Amino acid sequence: SVAFEPTEHPHRRYNPLTGKHVLVSPHRTKRPWMGQTEEPVVAQLPKHDSKCYLCPGNERMGGEKNPDYDNTFVFNNDFPALLPAPLPFLPSNPEESGPESISQMFASRPVRGRCKVICFHPRHDLTLAMMRPEEIEAVVEGWKGVYEAEGRFLRESQREEGYVQIFENRGAMMGASAPHPHGQVWTLSYVPEEPAVELENLEGHATAVAASGSHPTYPDGKACLLLSYAAEEVARKERVVEIDESGWVAVVPFWAIWPFEILLLPYKRHIPSILQLTADEQAGLARILKKVLVRYDNLFKCPFPYSMGLHQAPTPPSVPEESRAQVHFHFYPPLLRSASVRKFLVGFEMMGEAQRDLTAEQAAKRLRDVSDVHYTLEKE
Amino acid sequence: SVAFEPTEHPHRRYNPLTGKHVLVSPHRTKRPWMGQTEEPVVAQLPKHDSKCYLCPGNERMGGEKNPDYDNTFVFNNDFPALLPAPLPFLPSNPEESGPESISQMFASRPVRGRCKVICFHPRHDLTLAMMRPEEIEAVVEGWKGVYEAEGRFLRESQREEGYVQIFENRGAMMGASAPHPHGQVWTLSYVPEEPAVELENLEGHATAVAASGSHPTYPDGKACLLLSYAAEEVARKERVVEIDESGWVAVVPFWAIWPFEILLLPYKRHIPSILQLTADEQAGLARILKKVLVRYDNLFKCPFPYSMGLHQAPTPPSVPEESRAQVHFHFYPPLLRSASVRKFLVGFEMMGEAQRDLTAEQAAKRLRDVSDVHYTLEKE
Ligand SMILES: O=P(O)(O)O[C@H]1O[C@H](CO)[C@@H](O)[C@H](O)[C@H]1O
Ligand SMILES: O=P(O)(O)O[C@H]1O[C@H](CO)[C@@H](O)[C@H](O)[C@H]1O
Repeated sequence: SVAFEPTEHPHRRYNPLTGKHVLVSPHRTKRPWMGQTEEPVVAQLPKHDSKCYLCPGNERMGGEKNPDYDNTFVFNNDFPALLPAPLPFLPSNPEESGPESISQMFASRPVRGRCKVICFHPRHDLTLAMMRPEEIEAVVEGWKGVYEAEGRFLRESQREEGYVQIFENRGAMMGASAPHPHGQVWTLSYVPEEPAVELENLEGHATAVAASGSHPTYPDGKACLLLSYAAEEVARKERVVEIDESGWVAVVPFWAIWPFEILLLPYKRHIPSILQLTADEQAGLARILKKVLVRYDNLFKCPFPYSMGLHQAPTPPSVPEESRAQVHFHFYPPLLRSASVRKFLVGFEMMGEAQRDLTAEQAAKRLRDVSDVHYTLEKE
Repeated sequence: SVAFEPTEHPHRRYNPLTGKHVLVSPHRTKRPWMGQTEEPVVAQLPKHDSKCYLCPGNERMGGEKNPDYDNTFVFNNDFPALLPAPLPFLPSNPEESGPESISQMFASRPVRGRCKVICFHPRHDLTLAMMRPEEIEAVVEGWKGVYEAEGRFLRESQREEGYVQIFENRGAMMGASAPHPHGQVWTLSYVPEEPAVELENLEGHATAVAASGSHPTYPDGKACLLLSYAAEEVARKERVVEIDESGWVAVVPFWAIWPFEILLLPYKRHIPSILQLTADEQAGLARILKKVLVRYDNLFKCPFPYSMGLHQAPTPPSVPEESRAQVHFHFYPPLLRSASVRKFLVGFEMMGEAQRDLTAEQAAKRLRDVSDVHYTLEKE
């Protein structure tokens, strides 16, 4: 019988953060692609586009005019998925009776919240990858401001825990409706599925697993799943894409689903949210964000599409002493082989489980192997 | 304070089959779309395409030649995600020691299986929606044959439970690499995430919830989550798209994520897999599949893209008496507003939780309101 070789043979990996598995099929990278291809991103964008609703001075859909902003600019999404109306929080649906009855199957629970947009830069033609580290630090400052303000809004209007989800959809392939560099912030009266499951697993780990001694821990000495994982990745190196000495590491996580998925997280200490960053960690975050995004763009020499999201402590700004939240960034980019060939997470992936072709280690190596100078700036 | 109105106000719904929530934002359907649009499906296809690797008589990538098949044709996928090699089943990775240690985070578990393709019809230009009910019944027969054969392969080569996942990726938007009507069958040495979670929840329901008296049950009198749900939907009507008297109902499930998602399932009795269908139920299944797919195509007058998958009992053919599996079909179609505007499940949906705009009830009504005659056959 053949010896098992994870770089050659199909296998399954486990994600302790979500409790889900991924099927890895390393031998399948040889498959030719005959299906749909994506349109290349066209042409040079102007520095200011009079038709862009995010550019300084322009009018938005709702009729409001953007100020002549200098670095970042936050405004209310004109088509929010959540509304701040003071709806009752307890299920008002009389059908929700028992916890597992038939009528419970048909219970809708009212929720509220609000949606904001954050422009990263006045220039229409820039991306985070093309911005200077100081400009990216201004974005981090912008995130801190909106995270804190939205947290206060939650605290002032409810007793339950809520959540401030910061994210970016980058590129038309990821549903972004404008190329102008911007992200979104959705504030919710509850903790949504993904961070809720992560927080549960972080708590479970702290309770069930003894601290290893060789990894940093929570202040109370308990094991932090994400800190242990990050420290271990720094030691193992094979999945590391970038390290910043201030305490950040970017890896293609062992359990990655998307071909070039990245997890960016602290490896030195427990940091529940971006509000607890030291000045050094904040500057380091801006540096490593830029480095990761330059590598992404260089991989297929195109503005690399992705969805990026920030997971951290619920209901800022005051983080409880015993919080098990550990700040981290997920990057989910769809491209697989070139600027026009993406990975489809469809039939089997929807009905069976997540599946990937190249291994996380192979993806990390490819990202390490590209230049760290943006391809548009490279001299011939 | 405003009274909560689920057709107007943001709310959250719970999916008892997966244990996950979806955020519903009914007011958001007014949002204009300025992002990426999909290419319209072009032109008339020929009945036979000499360059199609699925047409009868043509040569495939691997060099093999397709027979002149009459109805369905099953062959081995030339680029399978799984390999049948007799790899050891127990984790051979020496690092997998404790259940929740750090080294367990880096454990790869070898898996095996095989991947087949099933052509639904010799004609290149047909789709399930355009086929006659008798021809669709031949596809059901084809699924039964491959489900049984793959189950035998699993039984003969391992002791653990395995799974035979039948699915279809339809349309370039869903990663299908050829328009020729076909589906796939992935056989796995383990039960993948999605059906595993469903089976767990079906079992949990049978154990924890008393049978209601007004709904059909498992043969042992225990409550079946999916049977109770289906019977209740038939009574409530508002989410029903099609019913077939043989015992099938197609609904936009209460907890649907995709805009026009459909769940097709039995509402009269416990049926663990397609192998247990009566002749009447099998004919009814073919009829309702056609009706659902005609409504899909008619909604935006286009060949409606979707991923479809069949969930049923693990490791056929012999189903244990006490099996809690209940056969059902999921349809996940991406289109939202027209043949070219899709729903993107990106940033918030990836980082926070699933989100939809129109309600399940509104989607079901739209599907009921379109004609049941295929738009290409409608007289002017
Ligand atoms: O095997 P196919 O049809 O070429 O490939 C398609 O379906 C597979 C199973 O859902 C996916 O893994 C692929 O990403 C998709 O392109
Ligand atoms: O609000 P936007 O950027 O127009 O919309 C985009 O991001 C949202 C949040 O991930 C998604 O719900 C939409 O499907 C997507 O198109």
